[in-house]
Amino acid sequence: MRSLFKHHAGVGLKFDGVRPKPKCGARDVLIRVSKVGICGTDRHIWEWDQWAAGRIPVGIVTGHEFVGIIEEVGSAVTKYKPGLRVSAEGHITNWTDYNSRTGNAHIASDTRIVGIDRDGCFADYVCVPEENVWPVHAKIPDKVAAVLDPLGNAVHTVMAAGVSAKSVLISGVGIIGLMAVTVARAAGAGRIFCTDVNPVRLALAKKLGAVEAYDVRQGDAYVNDIKRACRGEGVDVMLEMSGAASAFDQGFRAMRNGGTAAILGIPSKPITWNITEHVVFKGATVLGINGRKMFETWYQMEELLLSGKLELDEIITHEFPIEQFETAFKTMISGDGIKVVMSVNA
Amino acid sequence: MRSLFKHHAGVGLKFDGVRPKPKCGARDVLIRVSKVGICGTDRHIWEWDQWAAGRIPVGIVTGHEFVGIIEEVGSAVTKYKPGLRVSAEGHITNWTDYNSRTGNAHIASDTRIVGIDRDGCFADYVCVPEENVWPVHAKIPDKVAAVLDPLGNAVHTVMAAGVSAKSVLISGVGIIGLMAVTVARAAGAGRIFCTDVNPVRLALAKKLGAVEAYDVRQGDAYVNDIKRACRGEGVDVMLEMSGAASAFDQGFRAMRNGGTAAILGIPSKPITWNITEHVVFKGATVLGINGRKMFETWYQMEELLLSGKLELDEIITHEFPIEQFETAFKTMISGDGIKVVMSVNA
Amino acid sequence: MRSLFKHHAGVGLKFDGVRPKPKCGARDVLIRVSKVGICGTDRHIWEWDQWAAGRIPVGIVTGHEFVGIIEEVGSAVTKYKPGLRVSAEGHITNWTDYNSRTGNAHIASDTRIVGIDRDGCFADYVCVPEENVWPVHAKIPDKVAAVLDPLGNAVHTVMAAGVSAKSVLISGVGIIGLMAVTVARAAGAGRIFCTDVNPVRLALAKKLGAVEAYDVRQGDAYVNDIKRACRGEGVDVMLEMSGAASAFDQGFRAMRNGGTAAILGIPSKPITWNITEHVVFKGATVLGINGRKMFETWYQMEELLLSGKLELDEIITHEFPIEQFETAFKTMISGDGIKVVMSVNA
Amino acid sequence: MRSLFKHHAGVGLKFDGVRPKPKCGARDVLIRVSKVGICGTDRHIWEWDQWAAGRIPVGIVTGHEFVGIIEEVGSAVTKYKPGLRVSAEGHITNWTDYNSRTGNAHIASDTRIVGIDRDGCFADYVCVPEENVWPVHAKIPDKVAAVLDPLGNAVHTVMAAGVSAKSVLISGVGIIGLMAVTVARAAGAGRIFCTDVNPVRLALAKKLGAVEAYDVRQGDAYVNDIKRACRGEGVDVMLEMSGAASAFDQGFRAMRNGGTAAILGIPSKPITWNITEHVVFKGATVLGINGRKMFETWYQMEELLLSGKLELDEIITHEFPIEQFETAFKTMISGDGIKVVMSVNA
Repeated sequence: MRSLFKHHAGVGLKFDGVRPKPKCGARDVLIRVSKVGICGTDRHIWEWDQWAAGRIPVGIVTGHEFVGIIEEVGSAVTKYKPGLRVSAEGHITNWTDYNSRTGNAHIASDTRIVGIDRDGCFADYVCVPEENVWPVHAKIPDKVAAVLDPLGNAVHTVMAAGVSAKSVLISGVGIIGLMAVTVARAAGAGRIFCTDVNPVRLALAKKLGAVEAYDVRQGDAYVNDIKRACRGEGVDVMLEMSGAASAFDQGFRAMRNGGTAAILGIPSKPITWNITEHVVFKGATVLGINGRKMFETWYQMEELLLSGKLELDEIITHEFPIEQFETAFKTMISGDGIKVVMSVNA
Repeated sequence: MRSLFKHHAGVGLKFDGVRPKPKCGARDVLIRVSKVGICGTDRHIWEWDQWAAGRIPVGIVTGHEFVGIIEEVGSAVTKYKPGLRVSAEGHITNWTDYNSRTGNAHIASDTRIVGIDRDGCFADYVCVPEENVWPVHAKIPDKVAAVLDPLGNAVHTVMAAGVSAKSVLISGVGIIGLMAVTVARAAGAGRIFCTDVNPVRLALAKKLGAVEAYDVRQGDAYVNDIKRACRGEGVDVMLEMSGAASAFDQGFRAMRNGGTAAILGIPSKPITWNITEHVVFKGATVLGINGRKMFETWYQMEELLLSGKLELDEIITHEFPIEQFETAFKTMISGDGIKVVMSVNA
Repeated sequence: MRSLFKHHAGVGLKFDGVRPKPKCGARDVLIRVSKVGICGTDRHIWEWDQWAAGRIPVGIVTGHEFVGIIEEVGSAVTKYKPGLRVSAEGHITNWTDYNSRTGNAHIASDTRIVGIDRDGCFADYVCVPEENVWPVHAKIPDKVAAVLDPLGNAVHTVMAAGVSAKSVLISGVGIIGLMAVTVARAAGAGRIFCTDVNPVRLALAKKLGAVEAYDVRQGDAYVNDIKRACRGEGVDVMLEMSGAASAFDQGFRAMRNGGTAAILGIPSKPITWNITEHVVFKGATVLGINGRKMFETWYQMEELLLSGKLELDEIITHEFPIEQFETAFKTMISGDGIKVVMSVNA
Repeated sequence: MRSLFKHHAGVGLKFDGVRPKPKCGARDVLIRVSKVGICGTDRHIWEWDQWAAGRIPVGIVTGHEFVGIIEEVGSAVTKYKPGLRVSAEGHITNWTDYNSRTGNAHIASDTRIVGIDRDGCFADYVCVPEENVWPVHAKIPDKVAAVLDPLGNAVHTVMAAGVSAKSVLISGVGIIGLMAVTVARAAGAGRIFCTDVNPVRLALAKKLGAVEAYDVRQGDAYVNDIKRACRGEGVDVMLEMSGAASAFDQGFRAMRNGGTAAILGIPSKPITWNITEHVVFKGATVLGINGRKMFETWYQMEELLLSGKLELDEIITHEFPIEQFETAFKTMISGDGIKVVMSVNA
């Protein structure tokens, strides 16, 4: 089959047609891939940065965002049948630890990830355990179904914090931050404030529903602006999506006592943290966000999509055939595109 | 001062100018009333039904929905000053019982209600304890500020159930049910389904954001329609706002296992209830809703109003000067109007 | 193999050795049964009451409370190996509906129950899907491990309501009600009040930690006693374990405004319910309890057992070899025994 | 009246009888002090460390833990009468900000603290607003009622984290940490693990119910011991009560994915924090704890005390007349005593 894979310990990926179709285990389903999305993680793999070099096995098929059609099911599969249009959760567990057995498999202790620890979806076929399959509702188009994974990160963060009738600060409006703007608005946020260093993204954030979008390169005066707008106290909720140490500091200052901060952004190194001021005296709640709840997040995402409230048209900016993967990656890396989709068999 | 009061134990109210201005206690504030809203409770008092005859003291000034300006504060008042534009929570407590001291004063055991147990706001002046005052945000117009009390019932019900990214059934779209439609949509509901017996209200519910609005006079086939739309399982959340026994039965059937039902509607007499099927086997959560959380609901309401997401223009249908109170009440009672506001000093 | 089964559509069960050992499906495990517990449900099946006659297929092996050793695993089983000491959750689902995929499989829409809808554990061997297996901690003796299912009902009810630092009323101290007393005490309840009609069970409830145990045959004056003990307001939490209509009414009266009622007891027919007084005006939360959370309840149970805080010695009163099943059932039905265990291969 | 006050900007306090009795404002109550407790904060004030020198006005009466009898009430007081035995919450607010009006006054933005920002209770009389009064239940002895404030810190931390049927690590068993051990056990914790550097306190922690008590001076091998005891995953809940950076690091490592950490301990300076590993990837919840919930914590404390489950006898080790304040402070500072109480008028 055709596949896009990490062919050497360096920059770039290779696309060819020589890899055999994966074999479907007794409890796996084999999915013919229709469309895929390019994730920030795929960019790290492409660029072969320190993280990628330490984690990714050379030879692996990359990619974990996709939609496709079940082609074949293993002998012991009971849940799904060939012909079903599906996406899948990329976090794989054996379902035996505490979190897996209590509705929190997204933080299982034995998680292996599709496209990182085993072959991914940038190929004609991908194989996943039936437990990971997500049947896609007929009303959700392939282009959107291909990016349920990152959209799910945004939904997970927003829903974990709880934004209904609350004022919200989203620090960092990259791909997932922008998704979080439209998700937060759809999921009931009151006023949404955003920060970033990219004026184009900030403008888009306002278009998607943010009441204010601050360029933090102009200093931290915005912290007081936000507090003033919120009774002098600060926002109810902060969604950290930048990983920048300064965003942590300013974000917690902009949040009221007793507020909730949901952290998806990953600082590149340990940060010096004034836990006394930011958390203890403030009586704050801080939530670490990882992946998507399996499968509460997916149900929430479906309901939001069916409600027609999510605006993804300006976030999924480009679509290329997988053969043009170099253009696709360049478009994404340059920032010209936001979410870039590739069509494989569709 | 001028006041609209219950002049005899029978139908109607009387408006005159002979009552003295209320005296402001040491911890009270005296408010000059700008606008007021007519509540379903005021209708019961007007009509002097069994409930009103048993509860309402003849002579009382009616009304509990209002906005006005603080005119005077008692000698021991520390929180507010004359000149502030305010509304107020009508549930009065001495703040000494469990619920009052833990953020749930709306269900205090010693609650007395403005316009029911003591003089209300259909007058030039009304007096309330300073703890009950709610400063109104400058961006909220008087017409809306006059009806924060019933809007708060809708917000309380919606927020207690939690609708963010959930499918919702609202059974009964009277005044508060209609408010609940726009509130639920703003507060993050996915698809909203409604039921009622009034086609005009059902049409308005769809305009405000409901995906389906069912006339229950046409039978209960809609229960299966809703289930089909929701994976064959049913809605996540049900908001009961009709008080009809059949709505309870059908509503619980239309709700999925593990769903949450928030009950604001009050059945006129005890209903026969299949708690085994509706609650126990279903693993349901049932929440009784009374008043507005003091003051969490009020903050939520303010944030939703500031977000610009609430559509109240077609719900607050009429405004009359208080001198035309007979027309105002008739408009409300006939159903020609939905929420009817009267201007007093504005 | 030996088995105890429903041999005809009438009273009693038959024990013989002619049934073949069950065949283990690809994803099932075959368990050699060590000990079993007799449930109230088994009593219904024995007595062949209306419920049993309408639900139970003649010929079925009864029983769903057990501990045993895995003897064999199906070809596609990945989680467990022969030799492991295990119990199992008796609610079987295909794990495809909303609740199954979000940590609430106990209320799955396709639940089939071991010993009710398919062969049970009163036999040398029982077969269950690997997802249902619960590995038993080495420190938990077989006698206790045999009754994790009903203990789990008590734990689920107690934990759903949340009793930590709260006053609690347990209405009905049958087998699960008594378990709920020791569970509630271990799980952090403050004062525990109990009601029943059986003086022996009431005395045991006090021994297990209840501060008061009321015989409701002496009237409902106890409702005011409880309120007086609780600031004149009432208990924080009510656990309904009797199914009696009068217990619902009195229990809700004994509960404070804003309290939480968890309902495990099943009224034999629909009850007339004053939802206005008991739920709406009270601002109460009512929770329907079914089965055990899969598997949060099981983890909670394990932690409570490991803490050494549960007192089960006086609740598990009798143990018989399965050959003496007639004595075992009589001991349970007469009320001479509370929880009765039978040893099969141990 | 007699008072113990900060007489100069240096070490120690002075006790004399020349200060006038405080004047009772219109909404205040004047309390004749029976017994008081010495807090770690009072020690800082005694020692006049950097924090104290920057915060405490010279001349102030110290102390904030007490029980007494209401002697006089202000002219506008409605809630309480002279003769009532009371303690009081030391956090004073004007009840106008978000947190004050929503059940979270303990983190009000305008908090002033008794004995820190205004005169305290180490005197014959102390004056507080009536909203701060806590009537003490007749069954709670003065010695215990004098220390409800620090006991409330422990209860707040334990209850915020939620320990019911959970494994718990308490890092730091100083005064409040030891209280947290008996509180956690009473409030429903499963197994409790403790760490400290003081062998005497660790031994007492075990006596109060901890299953293991580790001396962290012997290294961090205990982290793996705890994980092994908890299915190889780690404890469900961590209560940080030491403020030591190493305890943060080790505590988070000992906690399972998805666990909850409640932080009461205050690091003396900002710590370097691996938020990626400890919070984000772990899907952890981190809660900042400040003061006591007003007044949910106080109700929880009362219920726990009435249940008879708290063991405070070995924690409240010494009682002296206030005239012996030097011995009292020395006993506390040396560590010979744990919680030291002084009697004033009792």
